[in-house]
Amino acid sequence: MMNHTTSYPPVPGVLLSAVAAGIRHQDRDDLALMALPSGTRCAAVFTRNAFCAAPVLIAKRHLALAAPRYLLINSGNANAGTGDQGLTDAAASCAALAELAGCRPEEVLPFSTGVIGEPLLLSKLTSALPEALDRLHETAWPEAARAIMTTDTVPKLASRRFTAAGRTAVVMGMAKGAGMIRPDMATLLAFLATDLAVDRALLRHVLGTAMATSFNAITVDGDTSTNDACVLAATGTLGNQPLRDQESPDFLAFRAAVEAVCRELATAIVRDAEGATKLVGIRVAEARDGAEARRVADTIAHSPLVKTALFAGDPNWGRILAAVGRAGLDRLDIQAVRIWLDDLCIVSRGGRDPDYTESAGQAILAREELEIRITLGRGEAAAELLTCDLSYEYVRINAEYRT
Amino acid sequence: MMNHTTSYPPVPGVLLSAVAAGIRHQDRDDLALMALPSGTRCAAVFTRNAFCAAPVLIAKRHLALAAPRYLLINSGNANAGTGDQGLTDAAASCAALAELAGCRPEEVLPFSTGVIGEPLLLSKLTSALPEALDRLHETAWPEAARAIMTTDTVPKLASRRFTAAGRTAVVMGMAKGAGMIRPDMATLLAFLATDLAVDRALLRHVLGTAMATSFNAITVDGDTSTNDACVLAATGTLGNQPLRDQESPDFLAFRAAVEAVCRELATAIVRDAEGATKLVGIRVAEARDGAEARRVADTIAHSPLVKTALFAGDPNWGRILAAVGRAGLDRLDIQAVRIWLDDLCIVSRGGRDPDYTESAGQAILAREELEIRITLGRGEAAAELLTCDLSYEYVRINAEYRT
Repeated sequence: MMNHTTSYPPVPGVLLSAVAAGIRHQDRDDLALMALPSGTRCAAVFTRNAFCAAPVLIAKRHLALAAPRYLLINSGNANAGTGDQGLTDAAASCAALAELAGCRPEEVLPFSTGVIGEPLLLSKLTSALPEALDRLHETAWPEAARAIMTTDTVPKLASRRFTAAGRTAVVMGMAKGAGMIRPDMATLLAFLATDLAVDRALLRHVLGTAMATSFNAITVDGDTSTNDACVLAATGTLGNQPLRDQESPDFLAFRAAVEAVCRELATAIVRDAEGATKLVGIRVAEARDGAEARRVADTIAHSPLVKTALFAGDPNWGRILAAVGRAGLDRLDIQAVRIWLDDLCIVSRGGRDPDYTESAGQAILAREELEIRITLGRGEAAAELLTCDLSYEYVRINAEYRT
Repeated sequence: MMNHTTSYPPVPGVLLSAVAAGIRHQDRDDLALMALPSGTRCAAVFTRNAFCAAPVLIAKRHLALAAPRYLLINSGNANAGTGDQGLTDAAASCAALAELAGCRPEEVLPFSTGVIGEPLLLSKLTSALPEALDRLHETAWPEAARAIMTTDTVPKLASRRFTAAGRTAVVMGMAKGAGMIRPDMATLLAFLATDLAVDRALLRHVLGTAMATSFNAITVDGDTSTNDACVLAATGTLGNQPLRDQESPDFLAFRAAVEAVCRELATAIVRDAEGATKLVGIRVAEARDGAEARRVADTIAHSPLVKTALFAGDPNWGRILAAVGRAGLDRLDIQAVRIWLDDLCIVSRGGRDPDYTESAGQAILAREELEIRITLGRGEAAAELLTCDLSYEYVRINAEYRT
């Protein structure tokens, strides 16, 4: 059983706060703190960009040493491209919090998002820590979600209740991100928590599968950030025996809830993407394997020509078909490819479908949400991606942002 | 010896014409014809897009059967995504010309560029053939170059004289293309001719190496067309024995001339790219192999964040470094990476170079032509690409073009 709630239930035992540290702007909260109860198990994934920000390196190091008790997140400055000083600053922020909170520095994970290449104003950050600790509260998810925003226009929250161990459990999450990356105002960050007790290996497994169909299945501009991170914390405050069985109904309910929260957050990120006017699902089926299905979906999602046609509301099937054709598939028979906009077949046998009319295509492209569906006619595998169009506004935001 | 000429010498024996067939617009030449003397040897390369236009399929078929005597090129309609009718039309255009010219249909190669998915108006094309044959002349290169334009704003021509077999020979070429592709107004087309006699295998070899450093080393938006084609014709009217020796000075002079013409045409295409305001060279060195050097160059050239920063004149080194970081290089040590804008080092040791100042970076980005140079510090291989920025105008042209 799964209910979609919009009132955001707290996760028992998980406390949050948001404060204004003045890291970049003076008029907004820019520091969020999440406190996890003793016994919490965590799984985390980080950016695969070889150019990792300092907090990513410190967070990985701390995760290998201890179970996290605090997640310390700042916006306004990514602490990336900051060399040795950046590492020192990230470690120092953890040590400062640990001293105030009475835990070990390695029990604190740091996360940063914002401008690259400028030193973190460490003293501003540490000065705000006492207030952040004071304000910790179970209901502060919305405030925390707002504090971690950069170019996001709305805070992003999602939750699901589900039944496990005969009780009602919850998964709650918040995320930020408005391009797949801004190395400037970098990053996708997502923090999820549940009151369920879950074995750590299983927790990692769930996070991995949920990422594949959510944060790793969206793309705005193909860029990936230096600071991307996603954490899933299981507090165990529900009191159940830690889940260990991958086949149990409890586990399946938990996994479905995590996947649903991740998908909702990922969708919110694309919907809020820089300059986006349309939310576009890309579904590729009948591929030989998942990798080639994904390659076709990626090629379409990253084609500036397809993206500008979507922005214009132009059902330009030639651009979609040409993107399929250049995806590098071995011996692709273009005659077997079919393409739909929602339920309207627009391409068959290597050209415009005989029943297709331009006005029917335009009617679908006038929608704010639509799906481009491709069948390759050469196998059983499929892949899905969520993306958006490419507008004047994307160019404006990314051309004018730093100045 | 090589001279760069701007007055475009004819290639003895090669005749051209341009006429207005009314294929899409009424007020311009849209059909070009190139006639090659008997004994001409040709090499050709075509798009690697699995979605090939009808004329590409017919041209490949004809090339396998005979040595070309006529190249028949229309703009305004790409004859792509047109199914069996497209193939019939492309073959019929060759047959019509062959009948008028007194050659075999397979001695005619068809090329098309323009709108995708609309049937070719074959009767308009064939009606214009008598005039096209009548007008053939050695000096009509500029008119032909203009007739094959689509969204190009200027015709593109280049030539080089060189010495071979004790005589002065010439390589002349024309090209069109204003995005790496427009599946709409598709395509990069290039036609080169020389009066030298060259063995066909050697001709293919020269075209392949010249492509690698010219048309295959430019990118506007990463899209590749359904209609791309490049032909190199060697008429042999110079009267020399066909070149066969890859080490001979004659061959080296010929190869240098072809490469220079191809590079000049390729540069003209990027300079004329849709919405481009800057011509940007990307040079990656100290890579383990050429493939990874090219991968890094491609990732930078296709990053919308880098391209919008270039448009804005923003020396955003974080975006360039992040693009290097996500290029998928095995065990890349980001500390070893250095990045320059022209001669200014902006990144060293994973962050802003200590001597770098923002104002120095902005001064270079104010230039209309500049180079981004990356050293990876892990090998000896290098790669070069030529690209442009991403502007409002690119979005406008590609969003509004068809409507």
